[in-house]
Formats: sequence, C-alpha cells, structure tokens
Amino acid sequence: MSRNLPVNASRIADDIDTLAGITEPGHPWTRRAFSPLFLDGRAYIEARMKVAGLETRIDAAGNLIGRRTGRKPWLGTIMVGSHSDTVPDGGRFDGIAGVISALEVARALRDQNIELDHDLEIVDFLAEEVSIFGVSCIGSRGMTGQLPEAWLSRVSDGRDLAEGIAQVGGRPDVLMQQNRPDIAGFLELHIEQGPVLEAEKEDIGIVTAIAGITRIEITVEGRADHAGTTPMDRRADALVAASQLVLDIRNAAAELAKMPGHFAATVGEFRIEPNAANVVPSKVVLLIDGRAEIRADIEAFCRWLDGHVEKLAGAYGVTIKTPNRVSDNQPTPGDAGLLSTLEAACERVGAKHRRMASGAGHDTAWIAKVAPAAMIFVPCRDGRSHSADEWAENDDIALGAAVLFEAVREMDRNSKEEKTDGTHIG
Amino acid sequence: MSRNLPVNASRIADDIDTLAGITEPGHPWTRRAFSPLFLDGRAYIEARMKVAGLETRIDAAGNLIGRRTGRKPWLGTIMVGSHSDTVPDGGRFDGIAGVISALEVARALRDQNIELDHDLEIVDFLAEEVSIFGVSCIGSRGMTGQLPEAWLSRVSDGRDLAEGIAQVGGRPDVLMQQNRPDIAGFLELHIEQGPVLEAEKEDIGIVTAIAGITRIEITVEGRADHAGTTPMDRRADALVAASQLVLDIRNAAAELAKMPGHFAATVGEFRIEPNAANVVPSKVVLLIDGRAEIRADIEAFCRWLDGHVEKLAGAYGVTIKTPNRVSDNQPTPGDAGLLSTLEAACERVGAKHRRMASGAGHDTAWIAKVAPAAMIFVPCRDGRSHSADEWAENDDIALGAAVLFEAVREMDRNSKEEKTDGTHIG
Repeated sequence: MSRNLPVNASRIADDIDTLAGITEPGHPWTRRAFSPLFLDGRAYIEARMKVAGLETRIDAAGNLIGRRTGRKPWLGTIMVGSHSDTVPDGGRFDGIAGVISALEVARALRDQNIELDHDLEIVDFLAEEVSIFGVSCIGSRGMTGQLPEAWLSRVSDGRDLAEGIAQVGGRPDVLMQQNRPDIAGFLELHIEQGPVLEAEKEDIGIVTAIAGITRIEITVEGRADHAGTTPMDRRADALVAASQLVLDIRNAAAELAKMPGHFAATVGEFRIEPNAANVVPSKVVLLIDGRAEIRADIEAFCRWLDGHVEKLAGAYGVTIKTPNRVSDNQPTPGDAGLLSTLEAACERVGAKHRRMASGAGHDTAWIAKVAPAAMIFVPCRDGRSHSADEWAENDDIALGAAVLFEAVREMDRNSKEEKTDGTHIG
Repeated sequence: MSRNLPVNASRIADDIDTLAGITEPGHPWTRRAFSPLFLDGRAYIEARMKVAGLETRIDAAGNLIGRRTGRKPWLGTIMVGSHSDTVPDGGRFDGIAGVISALEVARALRDQNIELDHDLEIVDFLAEEVSIFGVSCIGSRGMTGQLPEAWLSRVSDGRDLAEGIAQVGGRPDVLMQQNRPDIAGFLELHIEQGPVLEAEKEDIGIVTAIAGITRIEITVEGRADHAGTTPMDRRADALVAASQLVLDIRNAAAELAKMPGHFAATVGEFRIEPNAANVVPSKVVLLIDGRAEIRADIEAFCRWLDGHVEKLAGAYGVTIKTPNRVSDNQPTPGDAGLLSTLEAACERVGAKHRRMASGAGHDTAWIAKVAPAAMIFVPCRDGRSHSADEWAENDDIALGAAVLFEAVREMDRNSKEEKTDGTHIG
C-alpha cells in the first residue's frame, strides 16, 4: 500500500503478531478470557499503552483502559476499543485488531503532537466472546451497568464469575453500581467476519446496525423403536422429522434474506437421543440462531415457525412443543451522526466504503445503550472467523485505524463546538 | 388362558419376576454382562437349573449351561437357550424369556418323566447385547470358534475381555479352540421386539431368517462459517446437506420395505461439529443401520447410496466421501427342517403362527453357522424393547415354551430315527 496514512502500519503489525504468539500451543489462536494466557496478553497490551503515554487502569468490570487526558475533560470521554480475548482455536484478529487500532490512534495523536479537548480512552473489554462462564460481553455490559447480577454467581472451574473478575483486577463488590455517563462517543474497529467486503472489493464497512440475535430451541419427540424390527411405516422417527425442519428453516431464512436488511437463521446446535446405532431416534433438540437487522423480520420468522412445526409434527407423527425463545436481543442501530463522521473519515483517507449491517454481536451494542456509538469493519479473507484460518491483511487494518484516527479528530472537533458549557454528554 | 399346556406357566412367571428384581435400582431393567448384578442373576438361574436336575457348568466362552444326559448321547446335543444379560435400562424379557422357557422345557420333561435320547443343554449365552467391551454375542461366537481373537484385548473399566470372561468363570486360555460339533439342533425363543405379532394377533412367529446387519458411516463436510455474518447463499452447511440425506435414506428404505423380504434402514447415530450456536455446522457424521432379509436388497441400497451422496454433495456444495461399510453381516436363514418342526409344534399346542424375519440379531445367527438352528418369537406390547416399557404377557411366553417343548420332543424323535450309526450331526 502506498497511501500516506496518519497511522503507522508496521507498528500495528508488530503488536498483532506479538499477541498471536501469546496462544495455547497447538491451538492457534487461543487466548480465552480469565486464562493465564489472557493475562499475559493483557500485560503486553498494558505495557504498550504505557509506552504510548497512556495512564492505565482496570475498571470495576475488569476492562483494561489506557487514558489520555484532554484539554477540556468536562466535554466527556471519546472511547475507542474492542477486546483481546478469543474463542477456542480462533481469534488472530477478532477483537485484537480493534484494540491495537485504537491504541495506534493514541500513538498517532502523540506522534503528531495533537492534543484533544476530550479525554481519550483506549479499551480492551473483558470477555467479549462466550467465556468459560457461558456468557459474553462481560466487560461492556459491566462498564455500563447492564450485567445481570445473577451472572456473578455463575461457576466454572471451581470459581464464580465474581472471583474471575476479581482475578483479572476488577471490583465485583462495586460492579453493579457502574455507569459511564461521561462517554461522548464510542468507536470500534473489527474484522467483518463475513465475506462481503472482500467479495465487493471495499476497504471499510460502515456498520448501520448490529443485528438482533434470537435463539430458539425446538424439541422434536418421537418414539425409540428397535431399528431392526420396527417396519419403516410404523415409526415415529424424531431425526427424520427434524431433518425436514432443518431444510424448511434454511429455505425460509433464504427467502427472508432476499428482502432488504440482513437476515440469517442457522441450526448450529443439534443433538439426537438415544444416538445408538440400532435405535430409531426418539428425540432431537436443536437450537436456531436467528439474526435480523430489521426486527419485523425475526418476528415474521417466528410466526412462520410456530405454525410450521405444528403442521410438521402432524405429518411425521411426532410431537413438537411450541418453539422456545431462549434469548432475544433487539437490533442496535449505529449512531446516525457517527455514521456520517465515519463516512467523512473514509473519504479523507481515500478508503472505499459501504454501509452494511453486522450479523455478529459486538461490545458496541452494549455501549450504544448509553452513548453514541458506531463501528467499522475491515475485510477478512474468505469471511473466515472463529477459526485458525482467520486472516486480515495488515494494510486493511491500518487503513481502518486511519479512519478511526480521522473520525476521533472529527468527534473531538464536533462536540468541542457544541459543548462549551461544562456539561458532559450522557 | 385355559389351554392345557405341557409346561407350567406360573413357574415361568415366578422366574422372570424374580430376575426382574435383580436390576440396578432406578434403572429397570438393567443387568449388564460382566457386572455383579449379572452374576447375581446367573447364580439364581444356576440354582434353578440344579433344582430342575440339570448338571451345570460354565464353558470356556463363559456361557452358563445346564445339562441333562440322554439315553443315546452319541446322537448329539439338543440345545435350547438365549441370554440373561440386558442393555442399560431395558431387558425385562429380552433374552431372559428364552432362557427361562428353555429351562421350563427341561422341567416339564422331568415332571412328565420323559427321557430323551439326545443330551439336552439349556444355555444362557454370555453377553448377547453390546457389552461394556463394545461387542456383542460373545458367548455364542465363543462357543463355536467364531470370536475374533483380537476382541480378547478390548479394554473396559481397566480389564480386558479375556479377564472379563475369566471373571464370569470362562477359560480365555482355551477359548480360541472351542467348537461344538455335537450340537444336533438349536432353538431359541425371544420376544419379537417389533409390533407385527401383536398387531396381527398371532401367538408365535416362526423366524425364517435373521436379517443381515450392515452399518454404513457417512461423513458430510461443509465449512464452519459465522452464523451471524455469512449470507445464506454463501454457505456450505453440512447439517442442511445431511438433513436432506436423512430424508432420502428414509424414503429409499421405505420403498425397499414395500418389496418382499424384511428391509429397514435407520440413521441412529448422528453428530454435528462444531455444534455451537453461532457457527454454521462444518461436519456431520452419521451411521446407517441397514437390515435385510434378502442380501440383494442391501446391495441395491448401497449402490443407490454411493451414487446419491455424490449428487447430493454437488447440489449442496459439500464434500461426502464414499459411504464406508463399517460392518456387514449376511442374512442367516433358519434351518428348513426345524422351521417345519416348529410349525408342527405350534399346531400341536394350538398356537396361531406365521413365518416372519427377525430384524434384530440373535445368538441363533452364530449357532446357525455350525448346526441346524431356528428361533421363535412371542409377541411383546407395542413392539417396545430395549426400553423400560418392554412387556410380554406371561401366557404368550408360556405358549412359546410349550412350542419349544413339543419341538424338542420332535427333534429328539426325528434324529433318533435317522441317526443310529453313532455319528453326530456337524
């Protein structure tokens, strides 16, 4: 890349490569939250924050924060960040690209002797991925008073989440009182984790919304007959009925996906009972993961599903209880002002950009509940993520970091003009 | 039942009820081979054999045998029996009904002061069900020199099968040299484990053949994409492709089942990877259990399957390797002479009977490799088996025992006339 960027691409590459080396041997790239390796990774990030002149701390929710004081701190804090934890066997860029890009923004400001009016915070959120405690986005929920208190008692490996948070340096005793009314705006860079930018040769995705995630559990109950002796026409085979259901879900989702707004539905968990070679399957439990940019889409899907399983049960002689929504999040739109700011920043650095939804969940969705927030995507190879094959070109990440840099400067200018009365943005 | 049977129905009921009491508490009816409960059950059976005047022994393969000497032992041995071990959580009648019916034949002969020319052996075969060592029909294979030697090294719970056989009183050191050229004929009574006799109001099934069992493993490989971010039309979803395959297998089997000869095919084992809510399934491994009374049927099924998976893989953008036959047994026809003998015996006791195939495997299939052998079925409720719901009416079992009694008498008469030269039947 020959662009003259306001950020240092090789410094970004160095940091991401170093963190890639902090992984479980034989399981690239694994640095799960709450593990010793996770703390090793954080020690490196904290050291790099300090070199960049940031003042570091761990907040009550266990987030690692590097702070740069502004000239008019009463204007509030501009926050940029992502997460450094990974899923098992995947995560060379997922999360860390956003943490290091944010750090690079702070370094570039320092290199260019730019002082901001706002305070600037670079954040490594705790446990964005589904953690050993079975829950995700612990840091971004915790920072903003959105962590369900009951989660603190979730146990894994002989300790509860409260102890886990304390072990990374958080303060579970005061966690439930956290909130951050000072956040003037939040930005996150992340790899797309999908194939669209690469296929369309775009540099940057401006994320219009983070899709809502709805998880729906369905139990199909048939009858466990002897596979050798029960005639084919006297069976109530739960696997046969569930197989038809999987195909029907796929087709319904493909139809909804053709309409405006991102939509996807996936049967990702599927187990049969008794799972024995010589027994007709008596039970299938499956979990649908539905993602919708437009809330009405998932509602339409659920209505269709409720009616469809009833018909299917009748046709296959099995029992299917009403599908159970085990979790259900609304879509989170990006802040309209920040989306414009990000587009202007793309133009300034010469990045080709498009608007697109995020099918994946992100910390940004939680920060967006309390402050203006938005995110950008950079391309990743073949759309692969949560896999050892995950790859993003460093030039693409550096270009994204440059967009962040320009956007942060613009955010600082914007609210500087609007807010000179000493109040902060809530 | 008001029939005047040559056997004692209440004595059969007593024994089966007593053995039902020898079960893992909370897991009726569980008496798995090689467990202490299994040995408790055998101690009871052996005691009852002794009361019936039988001379008991454990043979090299760990089978419990009760022997009654005949007047002309050189005619060979008439053998009747089944197995007393159970699957987990099932087996109130599966196996034990045949052992007790066989024992009742010996008791009825003694009650009626009937001496046979042949020796008579009542057998409780070791481990007919898939045992903790992962293999089945250990006793019937072992008695007849058909146990693969490598199986003796299979390990479970810190001991190998050789030690397991020794612990029940067998002789693994001489096991591989076993054979039984003296068996003049073998009969087994078993519950049907299917719904046909009950539905058609028949008393007895005369088993024309034990279906061959062919197990076929198929691996469907797709691509593990992010369920939120990967558009519906850019996926290679292994679960979607495998679901279509399950439906196609079911339909192909239903077509073959409409033709003469028992046929069934079941996908009983099915697991997906990575089995995570937010990941498009990358892999499905499934196991087909195919049962055919007519060998050509399973060959036709396998030919269809090999071609079909190729087409399916193309249509769904996944990879499916050629289906792998992990095991493959030929069908075992019942001995024609014994089938006629059993039909005559049914007529004599006034039992309604029909010819039918066994979809399930049985010890009889192994004995049939070395001697004339056949089996009869008695009805069971709703065809349920390998389940705590398994049930058979005692009157039905007693009627079956009466058929065995008459058949044994006829076998004794038949070969007495044919064989007076001192040679035995091989």
